[in-house]
Amino acid sequence: MGKNRLESFSDGVIAIIITIMVLELKVPQGKSIDALAPLIPVFLSYVLSFIYLGIYWNNHHHMLHTSHKVTGSMLWANLHLLFWLSLFPFATGWMGANHFAAAPSAFYGVVLLMASVAYLILQQRLIASQGTDSLLKKAVGSDWKGKGSAVAYLIAIPTAFWSQWVSQGLYVLVALVWLVPDRRIENALASKEAIDLG
Amino acid sequence: MGKNRLESFSDGVIAIIITIMVLELKVPQGKSIDALAPLIPVFLSYVLSFIYLGIYWNNHHHMLHTSHKVTGSMLWANLHLLFWLSLFPFATGWMGANHFAAAPSAFYGVVLLMASVAYLILQQRLIASQGTDSLLKKAVGSDWKGKGSAVAYLIAIPTAFWSQWVSQGLYVLVALVWLVPDRRIENALASKEAIDLG
Amino acid sequence: MGKNRLESFSDGVIAIIITIMVLELKVPQGKSIDALAPLIPVFLSYVLSFIYLGIYWNNHHHMLHTSHKVTGSMLWANLHLLFWLSLFPFATGWMGANHFAAAPSAFYGVVLLMASVAYLILQQRLIASQGTDSLLKKAVGSDWKGKGSAVAYLIAIPTAFWSQWVSQGLYVLVALVWLVPDRRIENALASKEAIDLG
Amino acid sequence: MGKNRLESFSDGVIAIIITIMVLELKVPQGKSIDALAPLIPVFLSYVLSFIYLGIYWNNHHHMLHTSHKVTGSMLWANLHLLFWLSLFPFATGWMGANHFAAAPSAFYGVVLLMASVAYLILQQRLIASQGTDSLLKKAVGSDWKGKGSAVAYLIAIPTAFWSQWVSQGLYVLVALVWLVPDRRIENALASKEAIDLG
Repeated sequence: MGKNRLESFSDGVIAIIITIMVLELKVPQGKSIDALAPLIPVFLSYVLSFIYLGIYWNNHHHMLHTSHKVTGSMLWANLHLLFWLSLFPFATGWMGANHFAAAPSAFYGVVLLMASVAYLILQQRLIASQGTDSLLKKAVGSDWKGKGSAVAYLIAIPTAFWSQWVSQGLYVLVALVWLVPDRRIENALASKEAIDLG
Repeated sequence: MGKNRLESFSDGVIAIIITIMVLELKVPQGKSIDALAPLIPVFLSYVLSFIYLGIYWNNHHHMLHTSHKVTGSMLWANLHLLFWLSLFPFATGWMGANHFAAAPSAFYGVVLLMASVAYLILQQRLIASQGTDSLLKKAVGSDWKGKGSAVAYLIAIPTAFWSQWVSQGLYVLVALVWLVPDRRIENALASKEAIDLG
Repeated sequence: MGKNRLESFSDGVIAIIITIMVLELKVPQGKSIDALAPLIPVFLSYVLSFIYLGIYWNNHHHMLHTSHKVTGSMLWANLHLLFWLSLFPFATGWMGANHFAAAPSAFYGVVLLMASVAYLILQQRLIASQGTDSLLKKAVGSDWKGKGSAVAYLIAIPTAFWSQWVSQGLYVLVALVWLVPDRRIENALASKEAIDLG
Repeated sequence: MGKNRLESFSDGVIAIIITIMVLELKVPQGKSIDALAPLIPVFLSYVLSFIYLGIYWNNHHHMLHTSHKVTGSMLWANLHLLFWLSLFPFATGWMGANHFAAAPSAFYGVVLLMASVAYLILQQRLIASQGTDSLLKKAVGSDWKGKGSAVAYLIAIPTAFWSQWVSQGLYVLVALVWLVPDRRIENALASKEAIDLG
């Protein structure tokens, strides 16, 4: 079974999630510029979630690039990831509508945490299917980024009830760490090609 | 006519259905954790439907894998299946909003039943197109799982008016039976390859 | 420029239109079976539009199968068709919410008419690009079905103000005519292959 | 890394944006033709945005046609473009609901401006990746159309507070300029092929 349909289904779901989020930006009643002011927190939470979903799409793209076959457990690990990503519009909307209040900020962290755990599970399924010489395993190494992100969310969730801005800062920080280009998989692919040719 | 466009159209529709369902999780008014409590039944019905749609996508994927040509009757049998799947968001939302009340639980069973019948019709169209040596026919055999699921829904529908929890239990049970990896088609494909090579 | 991206974009838009229509089936307030009764006209109009969009997707699929190159005018003729198809959810929702009243029934006919005209324009662009030996031109011939459908809608629009049931009957009749398998393009493709091989 | 997944993801997002916009055309309460009258400005703003998104899809299609590899910065430049396009439904809905009032008309121009800047950035990333002999660079030349459009939006934004109709006129004018077939990339591709064969 090829991976094309898995990729295109995942792309479809992520594309829809990303676009459905914008429906939380409800058309305001007024016709003056002031009518947009109450929407600023909704907009900012949309920007943050858009970046997170962009990162997931990007990394998903790279990760599947290292694999050729698709097993049943990968299909379900992938659906599990898509499930938590599908809760982004809800978590984003609740957080934006309540101006980053404590509980919605913590809940947003829970969704981020569950998505990151689901991503690690999918990654683990891919590594297991690739055997001892797994290209993906070499590429991610000890995977401090993936695991560190999950730890950051774990810290941010209870912290939100003390100061939601510290939590938001952590969410933004993790996003920035991922936005910096990550060449691990690309390098692993390049060095593999060099070896194959050498 | 190739089957790629049939697959990608079906993937698109299922991806949208799965994502549109989450719109029933309306952003709550309050900003405390308590505001999430009334959403728990909506969330649980979303989880159940997500799993069902994942199973359909997964099985649809495998089933089409056995076929190479697409006939007009397959196109319509496929659209018929997508029609019933498209009622999942409505049935899920009604059931969740009414805390798994009797009538919505029965209605959910009707949609599950019609989708399973539509799936059996599509499977039958594929088998018919493959001739006497149908790989899919060998793979599904007497298809106790497909037919048994339809029977379980048939029982669950009237039962909901007596105890909706028995019906819900049946819906969960059928989902679990399908979640267990089903190697029928994979085995049939593998043994066919062995014969072709032998 | 290949036609794959045109096909997949059209598939995406049609898949979304078909699924967005179901959002007009709003989750009812009550928890009894009676709560579904007011939704019956909405449901019936959804069924009719689902079948129409299925026919369009099916025919679009076959029509593009005869063509290999995509010109700029085809891209815009295709977008023009998608524009009118995108008004189906609105027209369907208005008709269903008003129990097939006169004006919404007439308006539904206007959208059907414009979509059929857009389809004929796209077909004409494809024929023009294929030159004098156009396979599509041979397949559609005088195209009584395409032109006849447009005429039927033209009659149904004013008729709705006299009796909307006559109009609805015409809409159903045209859908049934198209549902009957149309082998024109398949036959033309088959006979072309026979000539190429002969 | 291939460009197929980038194209199909972009197609998916644009297809969803284009279709979600139509949800702003809310089903009216009344059942007479008069009930449609208040929707005319919403409809007109939908038509304008549909054409703009069609132009973006069309140009995106052509632009990526000149490129074979996809870099990390292209992925993010593309997501940046999709972000601004995703604000079209909101900007269109606000403008239509307020009958093209000053502030919503100016805001619509801001979204158009940001999308055009994002498009120029993506184009620049593609040219940079193609090296000194960039086919895309030759095709767009000094790119008076891309830059001129951005300037037109820049003028239209403040002008909306003096006369929104001048702004709307500029938006329509820019759309018309882009609707006229642009053969720059097609010609560049054709001449390149001639050289390769010569």
